[in-house]
Amino acid sequence: MNRQMADFLRSVSGWALVAAIASWSVVAHAREGMFTPDQLPAIAADLREAGLKLHPDKLNDLTAFPMAAVVSLGGCTASFVSPQGLVVTNHHCARGSVQFHSKPERNYLEEGFLAASMADELPAPPGARVYVALDAEDVTARIAGDLDPALAPRDRYQAMEDRRKAVMKECESDPGHRCRVSSFFGGLQYKRIKYLEIRDVRLVYAPADAVGRYGGDVDNWRWPRHTGDFAFYRAYVSPAGEPADHSPDNVPYEPEHHLAVSAAGLDDGDFVMALGYPGGTSRYARHVTVENLFEREYPRSVARSRERIAVIEAAAPEGSDLRIRYTGQLAGINNGMKNREGQLEGARRQRLVERRAQRDAALDAWIGDNAGKGQLADAIRGYDALARENAAASRRYYHYNAARGSQLFGIARRLYRLAREQEKPDAEREPGYQERDLRFFRQGLSRLDRRYHATVDKALWMYALRGYLAEPDENRVGAFDEALGLADDTDEATLSSILDAYYANTVLEDAETRLSLMDATATALEEHDDPFLRLATAVYDSDMAREEAGKTRSGRGHLLRPQYMQAIIDWQRSQGQTTYPDANGTLRITYGTVLGGSPMDGLIYEPFTRLEGILEKDSGIAPFNAPVGLLERARAKDHGAYRLESIGSVPVNFLTDLDSTGGNSGSPTLNANGELVGLLFDGTLESVVSDWDFNPRNTRTIHVDTRYMLWVMEKIDNADWLIDEMTVVQ
Amino acid sequence: MNRQMADFLRSVSGWALVAAIASWSVVAHAREGMFTPDQLPAIAADLREAGLKLHPDKLNDLTAFPMAAVVSLGGCTASFVSPQGLVVTNHHCARGSVQFHSKPERNYLEEGFLAASMADELPAPPGARVYVALDAEDVTARIAGDLDPALAPRDRYQAMEDRRKAVMKECESDPGHRCRVSSFFGGLQYKRIKYLEIRDVRLVYAPADAVGRYGGDVDNWRWPRHTGDFAFYRAYVSPAGEPADHSPDNVPYEPEHHLAVSAAGLDDGDFVMALGYPGGTSRYARHVTVENLFEREYPRSVARSRERIAVIEAAAPEGSDLRIRYTGQLAGINNGMKNREGQLEGARRQRLVERRAQRDAALDAWIGDNAGKGQLADAIRGYDALARENAAASRRYYHYNAARGSQLFGIARRLYRLAREQEKPDAEREPGYQERDLRFFRQGLSRLDRRYHATVDKALWMYALRGYLAEPDENRVGAFDEALGLADDTDEATLSSILDAYYANTVLEDAETRLSLMDATATALEEHDDPFLRLATAVYDSDMAREEAGKTRSGRGHLLRPQYMQAIIDWQRSQGQTTYPDANGTLRITYGTVLGGSPMDGLIYEPFTRLEGILEKDSGIAPFNAPVGLLERARAKDHGAYRLESIGSVPVNFLTDLDSTGGNSGSPTLNANGELVGLLFDGTLESVVSDWDFNPRNTRTIHVDTRYMLWVMEKIDNADWLIDEMTVVQ
Repeated sequence: MNRQMADFLRSVSGWALVAAIASWSVVAHAREGMFTPDQLPAIAADLREAGLKLHPDKLNDLTAFPMAAVVSLGGCTASFVSPQGLVVTNHHCARGSVQFHSKPERNYLEEGFLAASMADELPAPPGARVYVALDAEDVTARIAGDLDPALAPRDRYQAMEDRRKAVMKECESDPGHRCRVSSFFGGLQYKRIKYLEIRDVRLVYAPADAVGRYGGDVDNWRWPRHTGDFAFYRAYVSPAGEPADHSPDNVPYEPEHHLAVSAAGLDDGDFVMALGYPGGTSRYARHVTVENLFEREYPRSVARSRERIAVIEAAAPEGSDLRIRYTGQLAGINNGMKNREGQLEGARRQRLVERRAQRDAALDAWIGDNAGKGQLADAIRGYDALARENAAASRRYYHYNAARGSQLFGIARRLYRLAREQEKPDAEREPGYQERDLRFFRQGLSRLDRRYHATVDKALWMYALRGYLAEPDENRVGAFDEALGLADDTDEATLSSILDAYYANTVLEDAETRLSLMDATATALEEHDDPFLRLATAVYDSDMAREEAGKTRSGRGHLLRPQYMQAIIDWQRSQGQTTYPDANGTLRITYGTVLGGSPMDGLIYEPFTRLEGILEKDSGIAPFNAPVGLLERARAKDHGAYRLESIGSVPVNFLTDLDSTGGNSGSPTLNANGELVGLLFDGTLESVVSDWDFNPRNTRTIHVDTRYMLWVMEKIDNADWLIDEMTVVQ
Repeated sequence: MNRQMADFLRSVSGWALVAAIASWSVVAHAREGMFTPDQLPAIAADLREAGLKLHPDKLNDLTAFPMAAVVSLGGCTASFVSPQGLVVTNHHCARGSVQFHSKPERNYLEEGFLAASMADELPAPPGARVYVALDAEDVTARIAGDLDPALAPRDRYQAMEDRRKAVMKECESDPGHRCRVSSFFGGLQYKRIKYLEIRDVRLVYAPADAVGRYGGDVDNWRWPRHTGDFAFYRAYVSPAGEPADHSPDNVPYEPEHHLAVSAAGLDDGDFVMALGYPGGTSRYARHVTVENLFEREYPRSVARSRERIAVIEAAAPEGSDLRIRYTGQLAGINNGMKNREGQLEGARRQRLVERRAQRDAALDAWIGDNAGKGQLADAIRGYDALARENAAASRRYYHYNAARGSQLFGIARRLYRLAREQEKPDAEREPGYQERDLRFFRQGLSRLDRRYHATVDKALWMYALRGYLAEPDENRVGAFDEALGLADDTDEATLSSILDAYYANTVLEDAETRLSLMDATATALEEHDDPFLRLATAVYDSDMAREEAGKTRSGRGHLLRPQYMQAIIDWQRSQGQTTYPDANGTLRITYGTVLGGSPMDGLIYEPFTRLEGILEKDSGIAPFNAPVGLLERARAKDHGAYRLESIGSVPVNFLTDLDSTGGNSGSPTLNANGELVGLLFDGTLESVVSDWDFNPRNTRTIHVDTRYMLWVMEKIDNADWLIDEMTVVQ
């Protein structure tokens, strides 16, 4: 999945607020399962049967090969491919760094970038990180142990939140490290994972967009695909070997393990596995949740997205400077809409909602036959009631939330919240507003300028307010209406002139002002003349009250959800099945085979694409504008050492039945010997519903083949020194 | 291809004004060729080798089996399938009749229509025809013989036009017949074809849209496809056996031959042939023409189509009554745009423009080596110069032609033209305005109401005028500017109020008025107060002058094009190839095999689709809303006698490598024994460029399988009496 998809999916899973588990049935050809390293012993036999030649015991050690070679970039996955800290990931995961250094006179996006030597590598933009997982500790007892079952939900929420922060703070007292407490199995288990946080990250090599982004948004989520979605970073540390800010004195980080790159590659049906950081799935969502999303929220979301696109396109006409600023946002909305449409279509085809009702009923029936059934049945009923309340709250405030969607209003609310949080000791502040978060907070504030314009911001705000004004009173927020001066009979012209005054009188369009306001007190912001800050101040209390209600519901979930998950696990175990936890941004293993497919009756996906496919697609117009040299080499059938005889060409991309989602981008794809044969970068549109329900017929993951990567490096971009640095095996 | 495509392609071929031929290379698996019946002896050996078991000698006789069973509906093809005049064609070819009889309380489009018996069959709307070809006569000498080579082009044009009309008139003196003089090989040959014109045509059976239009515009031109695109008419004649207007006294027409319907069907790789009336192709267009269309006119046409859609959507908001009236026009523009985009993409992929330059050069080289080369080379140079002039004229008046695009203005121009033509003896009138045309003329005038509204008509006219006003003076028409009151500085508001006055003061929105004006004299129309009639009168002379210039160019073409075509034929013959003439709406044979394909690297089309594919696609929402009974029977795998073992289901649609285009819709697809195995109804989007250049890799024609037709008739619609009437063979 590309980055937009990863971000999008993260927002979905936060929003759904529902945990999930999936039954992992050991069915032939169904490769469902994102396993945690510590689950490997349970699946070792199946892994070997599937074709793994490495001893599976090695796989569960974060500090051993191959796990130790896999890193997170925060949103994407990557891996070490040399003893000198060379990191390979997807082009779309490194593209921000390419863009950061591009100028009209030196457009690396168009030309690609290849450092001539280590000294010429370019610092990635602030915020770029390489996270190396060092160890994982079960902290379930510290987070959830010894809590009185009778504890009020809001207190439960707070107690667990405080403990989580304490665990992280303790862990992060070790400088140069970042720690996370992750919930597994919907809160049955908590792990504290400690990462080395390497912050001197440099761009080594990224092919031109015309290779690395070939097919662009048109081919996004599509097969057949011909994208050279790879790029290289290098991780640097201080001469003492510690994480450090960028400095010419820094030296390459020397990982204990790195992956060998296969030039021999693989063929149809071969074993593959991928290691990576999938962001989130919801495979054990209850019927009540799935029904609400797929029958109400997603269809509305698609309709609203279509309208928002029309609003932006009208306010920012094609060819205008405004349109350029909003190109990214348009692409993002389009991408999200395409994803939702894919999910809706997939859910329809595999009758997701009906299947979830059936699973709920089957679990109920199983519980009915077992001891302790009364208490458990009550808990699950309570969990469903909670899901219903969450859905109702989400629906009730849908239009209000949308009506807060002006980018400047968002900044004003974040600034005022920060001032309020800073009145408390750091440990008591809301996550996102603690000392550890401020670096990213600042970066967020400074990024506005290139993607904002008052004309479009206002048009989108007007659009959202129209929807809000049509809502009944109970779905409105009085403080907001009053502060903004909204009444039931506010007409278009009045609304427009109200908003005009906001944009005419704001100081928040200025980046330096925004940053300086990070140090302002709450009182100072309350007394500030800026209309957006005034509005933010006015809605603060009622927004907080809604947040409190949400935390209370979360506290109920913290008690109920683990009981539901335990029931699922016990039920699956009674059927001889191993349950794996939903994806949560932690390291996972998925394995399967190179496999084409039939996404629908009458149509067949071949497992590999070929160089010839680029010649077919290429129109010379982006995103189908491969470099002339590449077209020449492809036409000349100059396949070098990278030809796959069974397809008669150099394989460009390939399909597998691996189980992946957003966040898996850049994941190393390994063969049976643990050698790098590809990089995972996308899934087909028929696969996006697999976040809810894995259907082996339709779910296919897309990878770039290392033979294509090496072919481009050798024949097109002359990246010989990098090929030499890597361990290339036949 | 559906009807819209057929109409669209007809407009294209008229517009291109360029004749063409294609080389038919006898290459394995390349089934290019739309052969005339009289070419069958030349290809008989190949037909037998390809698998035909019927003796090919029978195929070239219009009055023998199977040719005599094939009829034209005027735009679509159909065939007799019973001795009682039962005719099968595509659902989309008969849908107008279904719509004609549909009422809110009895919606045959939604419910389908099946006559309980012959007495319950419904008269098709006025204008519906079954044309039975009776004989074809070579009239080349009568049309083009004995003309002085030195004749002025305009005189040549007129002489040939007068002769053509005389031949038709003579032929049509036989009542109940319609005759056409068709040009073959770009004017090297003319044939007079005589058709029995059956005008009592009745609707017998059409499945519901949810079967016959399954997939609708979404699946249009797409594979995989699951459309039950079949319907039945019956032809009636007077008790004496003559064509007659609809009457209860009429009796079924008894064709001498009809097709047997196969329930055994066919499998992957089997021989098939289709007989039909393809509308037009341009396979021998010169580089100069192809370059102009594909590099200039088509890209502009796509861009303008997109803008016109936006204009209509803005003027006729979704959900409005206006939108309903313009739904057909929107679908038509969308369809045409999709077709052009498909042509552009196909042309790019097979490098059409480059290939045409290469062919022109190869022909030049061949001519250079041959006797008489000087005169021939001059003719071809002259032909290219003419094509360049045609292209220049088309470009020059593009915006003026668009600016005449108000529907009411079009009606006003036609009415005034009719009045002027009616001042002449019938034989001298322009085709389209002769006595034989008036019935269709009247029908055209009366059809406006359900697809017109002043608001949208004005918005489109404004849009077109904006483009026109931006043109330089030499591309403007003074009489038009003057009559409409246009100046270089006419602003939007002025333009809008000018047009408002047109719509406020016109009488042409009234159907009876329009029809009554067919009898008005030119003087009466010139003095009429209607602003559109005044404008039509004002531009008449200058429009006629442009038409005269076009006819002069056509006259040059009449002399030059046959020389080019003869060169092509001689050149091909020197390479051992048989040349077939471009499609021209006359009966043709194409043959080949059932064949899937790979439209692009990484993707494979299976040759058949299955009932299960309907279950997959079906969402319950049109156009994917198959009848509940059909879904049940499909789910129950109630395949009856219609199962194809190799696919494990009833085949719904299949692909072949046949050579087809718009007008072929409804063509009977026959097996090696001449039994009906399917109905041709569409081509894939990758195939639309085959009108210019047949690429065997990408060109695939889509058919509905007779097994699916019989399965629906038996299992879903209980059309037993029709099955019994037909000759169904195993």
